[in-house]
Amino acid sequence: MEPIAIVTMLAVFQTFGFAFLVGKQRAKHGVTAPTITGADEFERAFRIHQNTVEQMVIFIPALWLFGFYVHALIGAGLGLLFIISRLIYRHSYLNEPTSRGKGFGIGALIMMTLMIGGLIGAIMSWM
Amino acid sequence: MEPIAIVTMLAVFQTFGFAFLVGKQRAKHGVTAPTITGADEFERAFRIHQNTVEQMVIFIPALWLFGFYVHALIGAGLGLLFIISRLIYRHSYLNEPTSRGKGFGIGALIMMTLMIGGLIGAIMSWM
Amino acid sequence: MEPIAIVTMLAVFQTFGFAFLVGKQRAKHGVTAPTITGADEFERAFRIHQNTVEQMVIFIPALWLFGFYVHALIGAGLGLLFIISRLIYRHSYLNEPTSRGKGFGIGALIMMTLMIGGLIGAIMSWM
Repeated sequence: MEPIAIVTMLAVFQTFGFAFLVGKQRAKHGVTAPTITGADEFERAFRIHQNTVEQMVIFIPALWLFGFYVHALIGAGLGLLFIISRLIYRHSYLNEPTSRGKGFGIGALIMMTLMIGGLIGAIMSWM
Repeated sequence: MEPIAIVTMLAVFQTFGFAFLVGKQRAKHGVTAPTITGADEFERAFRIHQNTVEQMVIFIPALWLFGFYVHALIGAGLGLLFIISRLIYRHSYLNEPTSRGKGFGIGALIMMTLMIGGLIGAIMSWM
Repeated sequence: MEPIAIVTMLAVFQTFGFAFLVGKQRAKHGVTAPTITGADEFERAFRIHQNTVEQMVIFIPALWLFGFYVHALIGAGLGLLFIISRLIYRHSYLNEPTSRGKGFGIGALIMMTLMIGGLIGAIMSWM
């Protein structure tokens, strides 16, 4: 399961990085805690990070169960693609929020694959 | 641990579904990103999903450690009840936010059971 | 891995406690769902909890992979320090949001240690 562990850590580093960039936007635009609204650039960075956290609670369990019950290397490869799709998502969201659909959609498709594979794999292993 | 894995994936699908419904509300009420306030129906769906994410970071570790250190099938059964309680929570929240207490409370009690069981189980196994 | 499991459950209890305190602030200041803004004291408690959830998706995977690939007891010790740093963070944030940096920074350093250790450990184990 090392490939799954490595991809997990890469996703964790990405989430950490996105959080760090929210802090930078806070400083840049003088958005003092606990406020979470303000300059559009801050709000975009904030929502990108939030959305990433929302997806992590889905991605990490699905990645591990796909890796364990279906195939570790294929799971790790899909996980890497997911992380890349989140970079595309972030890039397009920062430029223009309405253009975020592509990166988001690719990521959602990969996540669905991991979810369906993990669920079917666990059910088949149980029977 | 297959029953725990299956319940994990069901909770993951539920979270994914709740996120999807936020997107639908965004489109329906024209709430464009990064805005997170607007029509009451949108805000309810948004908060239901957020609260589910907040609980997932508690539920998933507690479910696995209860399943591992106490009992896998009982843990999976409690996990299923938790997922059902979240459907009740969502249903009542959408109708009337102040009525969300029942589904929320049942879920919190189940989560407490998994948490206490997981902690005591891990401590006893260590000693 | 019992020490890691125990620290995981302590972090989970802490997150549950922080969520509970948001509910108390909701009641105290009459902030009715789905609203997430209002009295400053409520917003602080709300953001403390949100930030804790955001960190849990990083902390839990990093804790386990550090514990598994590097050292379980050292990982558990670092995890305990992280939980304490979150108490400091909460305490200072509630008193004065701008003073939250110290608790936050200590926690971030510990998290970075777990992340880097977990990633390097997994890569070295794979090769």
